[in-house]
Amino acid sequence: MSETPDSAVQTVRTYIEQHRAAFLDDLVDWLRIPSVSAQPDHAPDVRRSAEWLSAALSKTGFPTVEIWETDGAPAVFAEWPSDESDAPTVLVYGHHDVQPAALEDGWHTDPFEPQVVDGRMYARGASDDKGQVFFHTLGVRAHLAATGRTTPAVTLKLLIEGEEESGSPHFRELVEAHADRLAADAVIVSDTGMWSEDTPTVCTGMRGVADCEIELYGPDQDIHSGSFGGAVPNPATVAGRIVAALHDADERVAIPGFYEGVAELSAAERELIAELPFDEPAWLRTAKSRGTLGEAGFSTLERVWARPTAEVNGIGGGYQGPGGKTIVPASAQLKLSFRLVAGQDPARIEQAVRDWLAGLVPAGIRYEIVFGAPTRPCLTPLDHPALQSVARAMSTAFDGAKIRFTREGGSGPAADLQDVLAAPVLFLGISVPSDGWHAPNEKVELDLLLKGVEATAHLWDDLATALR
Amino acid sequence: MSETPDSAVQTVRTYIEQHRAAFLDDLVDWLRIPSVSAQPDHAPDVRRSAEWLSAALSKTGFPTVEIWETDGAPAVFAEWPSDESDAPTVLVYGHHDVQPAALEDGWHTDPFEPQVVDGRMYARGASDDKGQVFFHTLGVRAHLAATGRTTPAVTLKLLIEGEEESGSPHFRELVEAHADRLAADAVIVSDTGMWSEDTPTVCTGMRGVADCEIELYGPDQDIHSGSFGGAVPNPATVAGRIVAALHDADERVAIPGFYEGVAELSAAERELIAELPFDEPAWLRTAKSRGTLGEAGFSTLERVWARPTAEVNGIGGGYQGPGGKTIVPASAQLKLSFRLVAGQDPARIEQAVRDWLAGLVPAGIRYEIVFGAPTRPCLTPLDHPALQSVARAMSTAFDGAKIRFTREGGSGPAADLQDVLAAPVLFLGISVPSDGWHAPNEKVELDLLLKGVEATAHLWDDLATALR
Repeated sequence: MSETPDSAVQTVRTYIEQHRAAFLDDLVDWLRIPSVSAQPDHAPDVRRSAEWLSAALSKTGFPTVEIWETDGAPAVFAEWPSDESDAPTVLVYGHHDVQPAALEDGWHTDPFEPQVVDGRMYARGASDDKGQVFFHTLGVRAHLAATGRTTPAVTLKLLIEGEEESGSPHFRELVEAHADRLAADAVIVSDTGMWSEDTPTVCTGMRGVADCEIELYGPDQDIHSGSFGGAVPNPATVAGRIVAALHDADERVAIPGFYEGVAELSAAERELIAELPFDEPAWLRTAKSRGTLGEAGFSTLERVWARPTAEVNGIGGGYQGPGGKTIVPASAQLKLSFRLVAGQDPARIEQAVRDWLAGLVPAGIRYEIVFGAPTRPCLTPLDHPALQSVARAMSTAFDGAKIRFTREGGSGPAADLQDVLAAPVLFLGISVPSDGWHAPNEKVELDLLLKGVEATAHLWDDLATALR
Repeated sequence: MSETPDSAVQTVRTYIEQHRAAFLDDLVDWLRIPSVSAQPDHAPDVRRSAEWLSAALSKTGFPTVEIWETDGAPAVFAEWPSDESDAPTVLVYGHHDVQPAALEDGWHTDPFEPQVVDGRMYARGASDDKGQVFFHTLGVRAHLAATGRTTPAVTLKLLIEGEEESGSPHFRELVEAHADRLAADAVIVSDTGMWSEDTPTVCTGMRGVADCEIELYGPDQDIHSGSFGGAVPNPATVAGRIVAALHDADERVAIPGFYEGVAELSAAERELIAELPFDEPAWLRTAKSRGTLGEAGFSTLERVWARPTAEVNGIGGGYQGPGGKTIVPASAQLKLSFRLVAGQDPARIEQAVRDWLAGLVPAGIRYEIVFGAPTRPCLTPLDHPALQSVARAMSTAFDGAKIRFTREGGSGPAADLQDVLAAPVLFLGISVPSDGWHAPNEKVELDLLLKGVEATAHLWDDLATALR
């Protein structure tokens, strides 16, 4: 728990410099595999991605590397036992699947043909999450080089799943099935980001997410809006009314029971958030947006980090081609997602949405609602020793900079690991808001990617002490 | 204005029987041309359709047949002067373009490869409107055969446009440019239907229609709903709120000023409508719908014939593919149309919609709204002599049946003809509600199609007297 000696810092940096080119070449190889878990036709690519990672982890030195099957996409498990007696065990979590991406969505280059421009690598998955998984490979090698060890200071386990971008539908099952193999004293999640390039931070929690698809069925087929319009219910109109009913005039979610159990921000937490150097115009540029809008009574950061939301991810119905078509459409569809915060139970949210929806659909419209597997929210106390350890490793990588604490508006299955393994969950990520997760032209800053390598190279020694 | 003699009825029927097969063969030929005016790649087909019709009208005997160009699709004009002195002039209106149609919309057979099954011809345009235009060709020949004339009893003009299914954007311009050639004492519109197979009716008016497309722009690209959701406006959410704001709790259109000038139904008109043998469950089956919903205080027939509406024809935004995608979408689109009744001015409606929309879109969302060319509503008094003439011709075709009066919920550019030519507009149509206009598996009942031939075969003599 002491400061990392300068010699170790230098050894790590030299090691990284020597292996940087090969490390980036390997990452490019991996990013070329379009492991899109949400699209069934990419299932073979997700498997190929798992196999590629397995080979890379073996090459890194992990004596145990296994592909773990699920009812969906495969995960990769690796283990490198420490030869120190009483060494604590740390489990690293990440994912090897990626969001859908297509050139026509606005990518400047093929999303699955990585391009390095001005120190940035552009590719789907560059930062979410392949880049941040991959820095652990060079990181553990640098750790060994700096400490002269042949095994890590902690017993190091990796669990890299293949369905995170599809809501991790089989993850909890997988973790429960392998709970003994996964047992750990702490979990490190490398699937989050920092405040900015200039403000290194450690994340303390993530929002959860529940999502659903709603299908609304009206006439058996599209019908003439002149002959029948105004006298039968229109499923596209009903879809609009459902969307409008999601929020009240204060932009609070209007679904009865939605806020039940929400962990409200303390005054101290609101102060810590308010102290961050938040530049709203700059944030809006990152959000590619022209204005803010959200729950009354909360700041933008509070809205995205600590408040639950209801969002329309997709809506469709009727004629969407060129020109007009005067019909009452046969059907309409909604894709909704709800970000959840600590204290909210996804099962209760699902029931609340179902009850609310039933009251909104008029006679003459048939509907179906299907929920995906939810991801639970997750929050780690600021004073946890392992969290302090992560902050120190980050500070060392960032030349002694003061590390601040953030939260993550996005979601990951971290809470399942916390639940099943009864271990604290910590976050170590180097992505920045401009990386464009889930968006066209996703990228990773190469300098920061290597800071990630450096942080993990120092972390295992520090955690070995902190967790004993 | 006397009863049609039995001998004329018999001559017409014999003539139709003799020419029925060739007439239907020709119609099949025409229906094979996919003259979809709303889809730019079908523009050559719309032109081919105009050329096909020109040739058919020449073959019928019209001495003058011309293709009239517009800034959009071409129209066909034909004229057959009567050699009787003081013969009145009648202009027949119809259209040769059709609604979009694709096998995957639910057609049992290729929409552009007509199939006759159980006395019904299935094809896009079979009843809307090629079939109903085409009965005028055999009709005028039967009229000549029955009367022994070499020219019709009225100077007969036809104007068959090519953009009706796209809202007739250049029709008024065309009619104004050719007002002298089109001059007529009455206009016969053959683009409507009857009450049912068993209840022959004459239509007295049509609703108008105004339509618009609204584009809503949020973030410059789809953004991560975890990182940004809940803090920036979502254009798909705004689209939903616009849809929800279209109507109030009584299903009345809630756009301020929308009902200004509406010609309210008189007690007598409501009684005539109430007398029709309306079978709501049967109507619902025709509407392929499971329930009625519309403006409070009005019956289903009143809602579709005499009340203005706001309808969502299409809505789209965000991710509509398989699975989920946790984004705030970059944009959303709405296609809305408004059915208008007598007394409503499309220009005032357009302004009312624009004003209403401006108040609904929040800061941070940019929008565009584009209106198509409107179609005006149209209504003819029940006691007009020419309307009585049409009713007699229909009664003769239907073996002396009592003819009732209806309205049409759909729209046509009839009102432009009424405005520019200062002539009464009458409706002669034999389509029935089950024909499925604008829907998959559109058809025409062949028996009724031939009743249309028969009615027009008797109409010109009657009108020649009625209009003098």
